[in-house]
This record gives sequence, structure tokens and C-alpha cells, in this order.
Amino acid sequence: MSTSASSEIRVQGENLRRFIAAALGRVGLPDADAATVARLMAEADLQGSDGHGVIRLPQYIQRIECGGIKQRPGIRVVQERAAMAVVDGDNGMGHLVVSRAVDIAIDKARQAGVAWVGTRNSNHAGPASLYARMPLQHDMVGLYFAVGNANHLPPWGGMDMLLSTNPIAAAFPTAEEPPVVLDMATTVAAYGKVKAKAKRGEPMPEGWMIDRQGQPLTDPNRASEGFLMPIGGHKGYGLALMVGLLAGTLQGAAMGRDVVDFNTDHRTPTNTGQAILVIDLAAFGGAAPFKAAVDALVRDIRGSERLPGVERIWLPGEQSHGKRRAYAESGVPLPLALVEDLDRLAARLAIRPLARSEPVAAPA
Amino acid sequence: MSTSASSEIRVQGENLRRFIAAALGRVGLPDADAATVARLMAEADLQGSDGHGVIRLPQYIQRIECGGIKQRPGIRVVQERAAMAVVDGDNGMGHLVVSRAVDIAIDKARQAGVAWVGTRNSNHAGPASLYARMPLQHDMVGLYFAVGNANHLPPWGGMDMLLSTNPIAAAFPTAEEPPVVLDMATTVAAYGKVKAKAKRGEPMPEGWMIDRQGQPLTDPNRASEGFLMPIGGHKGYGLALMVGLLAGTLQGAAMGRDVVDFNTDHRTPTNTGQAILVIDLAAFGGAAPFKAAVDALVRDIRGSERLPGVERIWLPGEQSHGKRRAYAESGVPLPLALVEDLDRLAARLAIRPLARSEPVAAPA
Repeated sequence: MSTSASSEIRVQGENLRRFIAAALGRVGLPDADAATVARLMAEADLQGSDGHGVIRLPQYIQRIECGGIKQRPGIRVVQERAAMAVVDGDNGMGHLVVSRAVDIAIDKARQAGVAWVGTRNSNHAGPASLYARMPLQHDMVGLYFAVGNANHLPPWGGMDMLLSTNPIAAAFPTAEEPPVVLDMATTVAAYGKVKAKAKRGEPMPEGWMIDRQGQPLTDPNRASEGFLMPIGGHKGYGLALMVGLLAGTLQGAAMGRDVVDFNTDHRTPTNTGQAILVIDLAAFGGAAPFKAAVDALVRDIRGSERLPGVERIWLPGEQSHGKRRAYAESGVPLPLALVEDLDRLAARLAIRPLARSEPVAAPA
Repeated sequence: MSTSASSEIRVQGENLRRFIAAALGRVGLPDADAATVARLMAEADLQGSDGHGVIRLPQYIQRIECGGIKQRPGIRVVQERAAMAVVDGDNGMGHLVVSRAVDIAIDKARQAGVAWVGTRNSNHAGPASLYARMPLQHDMVGLYFAVGNANHLPPWGGMDMLLSTNPIAAAFPTAEEPPVVLDMATTVAAYGKVKAKAKRGEPMPEGWMIDRQGQPLTDPNRASEGFLMPIGGHKGYGLALMVGLLAGTLQGAAMGRDVVDFNTDHRTPTNTGQAILVIDLAAFGGAAPFKAAVDALVRDIRGSERLPGVERIWLPGEQSHGKRRAYAESGVPLPLALVEDLDRLAARLAIRPLARSEPVAAPA
């Protein structure tokens, strides 16, 4: 077991995947489905989306045990045309529902050039970029929208939290450079970041949240007394609304006051909605010129003049790309407290605990 | 002639349309094309997009006279599948190219459910919302992306202005409420707002621009020494990049360092790119349930609890909707200085000057 000074433990992606699959299998998911979800959750940790990987496992397990997520859903297409489909997830695990939606969109885009596939009766599915990235290996662009699973954002000027952090993700293939992958909440900070600040006992920067008087709220322990702020003021409110209409309302999924807070309610079906747009570069004159143009743009941006004190200009997705490479080799760093949670979960489910990495032998 | 205290003149939309069409006809646009562009430009003013309506006419005319825009372009589809097309605008007026693209997208969406049509060799086409709104009358959703026609935004942490204010617009049909119409630059302020502050001799708020030391820049007369700021910091940078890749690079249009500053260069073809995504609600279970759901959401938001001091919660597009109604009746308010510019243009082109509204008779 390798423990860093900051109480982190390194775990190989493969071990993470096996552990998650065992836990999900234990609560009734069929083996193939448990393996799919586990692969995607481990992939989230491997790309550094640590708020969306194995940290969510205890919550997912609890929800399944409470009957809030179906173990054996009948996921099916309920509406379909040449360039679109709506997938009804039958309240199954979101990862299964959305990856099915993306597969269908990729198939349809290959024929129609472009395809939109949305979901309803889905659930939380992890980081948006996971799904936006799936079309990349087919030389396709992915654009993903999702309704968040708890409302923390009021309309601009308001106090009723009718909106969520509704994220947008987009992934663009490249030839030699890391793919350009954007994945962003439409709020200044995602709610998970607020919780992380509370856990570390640090104040939040001004601009993340306001209180009911409209004043900056910086104490993360008072988060329940305030609201998240949208990016760009009224613009982020507009974006969160747009994403919710596209990912939720369009497919008949929950939006606005129908959104279920899945952190406090483990039983009510969330009717989560997501949507993926897939664009096949082959229809637009071929992938090669597009990828070459993105490579050139990436290099122009990376090599451009920096403000005083700025060490490097990053492209969206570049840091995740670096983590994916590093963690594939050295293992995913997990906080000791999380590993202890997972050990308790393992004991309760009577499965083998999460296997830690062998310590790397120090040079003699 | 009715002149308000603030040196504004009211002009009926119909008179605006006739004047613009006459001017464009005079510099060589065929009558039907001049009428189409004039209708869209007047529509921009009628919805309150006053930075994108008749105020642009002198610049467009100059560009046409300099050979920077073709009067009789051969606009044609160069790539096509069931759910996509690329329209080559042959360097014609952007309004013609984009409205052609939207028409094609609406037709394709009616069959395929969803369609993406992009442009290249297009030009500045006015406000993004004009085009996102076109599908509304067909009970379709419109989502529009465009590459701006001058780079004022550096990558996050940088000083090279490789990006523009690349806007996003989205329009959602409703039953009884005004349609939800978002139209936003991915920068905190559009560059036109900076110019307007300079004209009025007012400082800019902190957050609009920074200088080459990364410090807030609030003097609009020093705008050329600084850069626009993206909404949400690195997030808005990511959005501007995403929009540029979707609207520009994907269609083979200009992006990054290839973007021509059409304010300073009147001759070089801009190779502007735009893209519209049209979603036919009929494919998603019909327009009626969607429109009813959006109405309900709009009412929830409008009626929700307000922060202290906030008089009203607005929906995106609600203020433009109000202006469109008011201006259709009372005429579009134009600054006196603009009307004088247009009078000089009329004299130079030997066309009838812009007809002012009759003053409304005061009650006896």
C-alpha cells in the first residue's frame, strides 16, 4: 500500500473497475451492466473527474438498495427518426442509459451526418466529458448537455432554486494534439467544490455563492443558506435554462421544480434527462483537414503571448488528458477517508476490499 | 418628425426596410436579395438589437463598394446528408447566406427530426437571435453559433487576441408566453458596448476588459490597449473556442488567426462561418406538450421569489419581445447622429432619405 504524505492512496484503474463492478453486481445489476458502469466510473477517476467517480459509489448503492434506481431496467428507444432518438432509461443507472444513447447517436450520425439522441427516465451518469468524448474515436464531434441532479441555482435576481448546474461538454478530435474537451457547469463553481471547501475548512472565494440578501457568501458551512452564482450573471442563468430545456424538457425529462434532489431523496425516480449531439466529420469534407486545423489552432493558442505571471496557457481538456496518462501508469490517487468508506461498503456487501497498488520499489 | 428629449427619432420598421433595400439595390444587390437583407436588418432594430440593425448599413455599403462582399454571389450547398449541409456563401451578404442555411435546416429537420447546416465564405449576418428564432414558427427549436468578425478575446491567461465574442443563440417555442430566446456573446460585454461607452463618455464597469498587465481596464478610450474578458473566466474562453470550432472550423470557415477584422479591413473576404441546429418538436412527441412545459417553467421562474431590491425576474428574450411589440407600433428609436449619417449616405447614393414617422398628434 502506497500512502502519500497527504493521506492519499494510489489505486490502479483496473482494481477500481473490478471493485465497482463487484459492488454493483452484489446489489443486483447484471454482470455486463455492472461492468459497463464500473468501466465508466473508473474512467471518470482516471481522467481526474474525482467528484464523479468511485466517490459516488456509496450513494449509487444506497439508491439502488432503496429502490430509487432499477437494477434491470428495460432501456428502449421510444421516439426515432433518421437523425434523432429518445431513449427511455426506465430508471436504470444513468451510465447505461447515456452510453446507449451515445452509441445510437454515433450510428445515426454515420448515415445522416449529424444525430441528436436524448434520454428520459435516466439517472446521474458521471462527468459530462465522458460522453462527449465517446464519438472521438470515430472521428466525430460530441456535444453533450445534462440536467443536474439537484437545484442550487435560482433565476437571475431570484431566490427560488429552480435550476441546476446543468453542464455543457464538447469534444473535438485532433491529429497529434490532445483532443479539445470542454466540460463545464454553467455555475461559477459546481456544488461539489463547495462541499470540498467545507471538508477542507477553507472559505470560498467571492463570486461562488450569494446569500438571501444578495451578499457574497464565503463560508461553505453556510452553503444551505445561499445559492450558486451563474457564470457571467444573467448569461449563465440563460445557459443553464437552455441546457435544461435541451436535455430535460425536450425529452420529457425533469426540469425546473420537477428536479429531484438525489442527495437527500434516495427513493423518488429522478427522471433525469441528458442529450448528445454527434457530428460526423466524414460528412463535412473528412476528418483529416478538421483535425489538422484544430491541431494548428491548439498550437497557436498554446504558443501565444501570456499575461505577466502566467506560466502556461492551457487548452480545455489538456489537464484531464495529462491525468489520464499519469494515473493509468501510477494509479488513481484516492483520499484515505474515501478508501476507508469503500472498505466499510465492501465489508457490508461482503465483497473483497478495494485492492491498493503495490508500493513502487525504491531504487536500491 | 418626432424627436425625443434624448435626440432620438422614431422610424417605422417599414420605412427602415425600404431605405435599407434602396441603398443595397443602389450598390448592386438584386432586388430580391436587397429586400431579404433589408427585412432582416430592420427586424434586428425592431427587436432592439440596435448594434446589429441599420447602424451597420454604412459599413456594409462601404464593404460592398470596396469589393469585400459580392453583390451577386453563387450561394450553394457543397456538402449534404440527410441531417446536415454546408452552404458556401461565395462571399455574399451574411444575411442571405445564413437565412438560406436556416431554410435548408428546417426542411431537413422536418424529415430527419434534427438538422445541422453550417456556412463558410459567409459574412456578418446581424444578431444571432434572428436566425435562432426562424424555426419557431415551424414549432421547431433553433440553436445558433457564429464566429465573430473581429478578434477581441485572448485565450485564458494570454494576450494574443485569437478568439472573438463568438455568440450562442437558442430559441424555444411556447404556447402563450413569449418564446424563450437566448442571445449572448461569450464575453462579459460585446465590443459594441465598449464603443457605446466611449461614445457616451462613460467608464466601463470592472470585469469587461483587462489591460496588458492583467489589470482592470475601465476607460473605454483605451480599449485598444486591452482585451475583452470571457464570462466565467476560463469557462467563457472554453465556450468561445467551442463555438468557433463548431461555427468556423467544422465548415472550413475562418477561426483563430484567420479571422479578418471587418472593422478595419474592408476588402479581404472574411470567410465567416455560422451554424444552425434545428430540432423538430414533432419528432419528440409533438410540439404541444413541449410548449405547455415551457410555458409552465416560464411562469414558475417569473413568479419565483426575488432577491431584495429586484423588481422583476426576466426570461431570456422577454425584453426583446416587448420591444418588438412596442416598436412595431411606435417606430424604432434611432439616435439623431445615426439618422444624420444615414442622410449623408442617402445623399451620396442618390436615394430618398430615411422617412421619419409622422409626429403623433397630441390630444387637443
